[in-house]
Amino acid sequence: MSDFTRIDHYLETHLDESISELSRLCSQPSVSAQNWGIKECAQLVGELLEKRGFDVTIEPTAGAPVVLAERAGRSAKTILFYNHYDVQPAEPLELWHNPPFVPTLKDGVLYGRGVNDDKGHITSRLFSIDALLATERELPCTIKFVIEGEEEVSSANLYSFVSDHRESLKADACIWEFGGVDHRDFPMQYLGLRGICYVELFVETANQDVHSGIGGSIFPNAAWRLVWALNSLKGPDERVRIPGFYDAVKPPSQRDIELMEALPNTGVQFQQQYGIANFIKGLQDDVHLRLAEVFEPACTVCGLSAGYEGPGLKTILPSKASAKVDFRLVPDQKPETVLKQLRAHLDAEGFSDVHIKYWGGEAPARTDPDDPFVHLVVDCAKSVYGKPMQIVPMVGGSGPNHIFMETLGIPIVTAGVSHPGAQTHAPNENLRLDLYLMGAKHIARILKQFGNAK
Amino acid sequence: MSDFTRIDHYLETHLDESISELSRLCSQPSVSAQNWGIKECAQLVGELLEKRGFDVTIEPTAGAPVVLAERAGRSAKTILFYNHYDVQPAEPLELWHNPPFVPTLKDGVLYGRGVNDDKGHITSRLFSIDALLATERELPCTIKFVIEGEEEVSSANLYSFVSDHRESLKADACIWEFGGVDHRDFPMQYLGLRGICYVELFVETANQDVHSGIGGSIFPNAAWRLVWALNSLKGPDERVRIPGFYDAVKPPSQRDIELMEALPNTGVQFQQQYGIANFIKGLQDDVHLRLAEVFEPACTVCGLSAGYEGPGLKTILPSKASAKVDFRLVPDQKPETVLKQLRAHLDAEGFSDVHIKYWGGEAPARTDPDDPFVHLVVDCAKSVYGKPMQIVPMVGGSGPNHIFMETLGIPIVTAGVSHPGAQTHAPNENLRLDLYLMGAKHIARILKQFGNAK
Repeated sequence: MSDFTRIDHYLETHLDESISELSRLCSQPSVSAQNWGIKECAQLVGELLEKRGFDVTIEPTAGAPVVLAERAGRSAKTILFYNHYDVQPAEPLELWHNPPFVPTLKDGVLYGRGVNDDKGHITSRLFSIDALLATERELPCTIKFVIEGEEEVSSANLYSFVSDHRESLKADACIWEFGGVDHRDFPMQYLGLRGICYVELFVETANQDVHSGIGGSIFPNAAWRLVWALNSLKGPDERVRIPGFYDAVKPPSQRDIELMEALPNTGVQFQQQYGIANFIKGLQDDVHLRLAEVFEPACTVCGLSAGYEGPGLKTILPSKASAKVDFRLVPDQKPETVLKQLRAHLDAEGFSDVHIKYWGGEAPARTDPDDPFVHLVVDCAKSVYGKPMQIVPMVGGSGPNHIFMETLGIPIVTAGVSHPGAQTHAPNENLRLDLYLMGAKHIARILKQFGNAK
Repeated sequence: MSDFTRIDHYLETHLDESISELSRLCSQPSVSAQNWGIKECAQLVGELLEKRGFDVTIEPTAGAPVVLAERAGRSAKTILFYNHYDVQPAEPLELWHNPPFVPTLKDGVLYGRGVNDDKGHITSRLFSIDALLATERELPCTIKFVIEGEEEVSSANLYSFVSDHRESLKADACIWEFGGVDHRDFPMQYLGLRGICYVELFVETANQDVHSGIGGSIFPNAAWRLVWALNSLKGPDERVRIPGFYDAVKPPSQRDIELMEALPNTGVQFQQQYGIANFIKGLQDDVHLRLAEVFEPACTVCGLSAGYEGPGLKTILPSKASAKVDFRLVPDQKPETVLKQLRAHLDAEGFSDVHIKYWGGEAPARTDPDDPFVHLVVDCAKSVYGKPMQIVPMVGGSGPNHIFMETLGIPIVTAGVSHPGAQTHAPNENLRLDLYLMGAKHIARILKQFGNAK
């Protein structure tokens, strides 16, 4: 394994340079929800790839531009990296210990918006490529990048983009935008993502807020209409009440259950990290919790807003109210179907005054746990992490993996730098440098072994 | 009626002086919510009363000082005026046509913050007193003023102030801080106010927001908890579900219904002003709408807040959620009882995790429409307005009238200078000078007739 000794040595002695590049990338805000810094960030990502000898094009879409890059390698095989350069909003700002767009290193951990999701993944992959080029002067296989700027807002334009560019995106396997270790520092292989259907419900009952002394007993109240409409979607039993919602749900297979049984319990960890007293549905800290987490669909109120929300009191009857709601979907639910079912349900329940804005959706999708590429990636992890990679057949989050699976017909694996305390999407998002280094070593091994494989 | 001819002549020929005094008073900002100019304004009001030969004391409270004033009159009888010298914030400033604290006269209308609520009422009463003193050299009865500085922020210290000063406030009848005409310029007599119990409901399910992909199927969600707790309070049938809530409700008497029947319809007016399609509970534009407006208690969500409320989408599960809720109460409901019933109901429905912050309350209170003082005030209006005063047994708003009724046991009437277009609490608050003059004539008649009555 002398090749890997030299590669690892390069990575260990150039870590500061890569973290410096990551800090530069995270100093460039790129909040897709607020359309802030998107184009500038795409440009910067393109420059980082060009520096490594990639052919780069920055492709316009109806939304944020997509960075496409390709560099040929020794073998005929091709790996496609899917990443995104956009980040979640940093709010609430007062909970950050450092300014979110001023990446700050403390005790071997880098803090800042995007250091983990997903800019740390972008630069760790570039770091692996640097090590391969420095030690071998060429890439072991052809490498392609597709780096979008709308992942955090449901990848609205990615489906048509991938369809339109299916020839240039052609590859034998895909490495996804995230990956990492669990709370025991075991490397994890995540093989499926739930789908999502994200909507905003909106009610307007008057042209202005009304004094509650005048209107309280006789005027319609937008906040009440919203509360009742939401209550019709799901009650305290946590069962979604929309007719047909569960029709397409496939229960986990025997193989899925075995894989989930092999994983450690996560409940206590969750409880400590988030200060949760009890899980819902009477779930206890065992395999049923893990199965429910990813194989059951969910309906989540993500935000509520109506009337007076400031300090103290104001006696008004709100004329407008809105709720952001996400539905997490499992195979074979489809966001378009759920959207139609939701509209029909609200109408049937007397809530035709509740408007739906569809913010976007993704279908659920999975890779076969017994695909040969999955085995290769799992094998490569062992010498880096000193622990066997755990196979997770499905995770709770969502993403556009279904687009690549449907359009390109390739397996998708995860390999990355994240950990459970990374505060993804939350204040004080962070990256452990030890995991960053291991992630880069793992990617370098995958690329090399894949290029060498028959 | 030669007495009134002389009094009216005085008022008609000295209007400019009184408006000039009102302008001076309104040039002194006194925004209680912002603690701006409060003490200076109390001082100024005290000076205006001293000028009329009143004994004035400016009494400290835990909040804004109260101006107390008294001047003895011919008869043994005493009238108490309740007013307030504080005003609402002037914001949003950009919607004013003149600077809010630079009173500006245009086409017989004075514009400025406080010209109607409540400084115009203070000076119009002083104006009546000037006319009586100029024409008769003495007051027809003893007159007391209690002028507080926290009416616009819920009169937090008034209850204990009135209790502590019950001897010096002793009177036979009270004239309230507001009054005026309706949209047809008919003078209105408002004889009761609903009570209020204002609470904030608050739920916290975790120590931070959680990625909805992780938590959606297994974590408690503060926003859902709040929605379900609110839904348990009232459903689309508009019936409050809190056990015991309606127990103390007294339905309107036959006399109340007759008085409400004598009033004009207001529904079309409301619909045009607020852009309301339909009223709730199937109410139509008739007496039932007016009865429901003021004789039915209400439960109003005034504000909702949880999770992500910004533009676009954010896939989080909120750890905190809150709702501001006001209950409007009718005789003989009590805010303290409703608060207890609410807590018991939430506990019984499984919502002991929903915390209640009590922001404050007022009891409902009414004056008997057949009280002799009400008849006197109504009679006095006729020769001033040329139209019969309309008796409204109850209005939908709330205020501290119950404090005076409970503590002093006296009837309270309204007589004032307001009109429906006065923009109270809003930009371009205004005062019609014709109504100002009529209001002063009315008060002068009330004081004189009351002093003369057996």
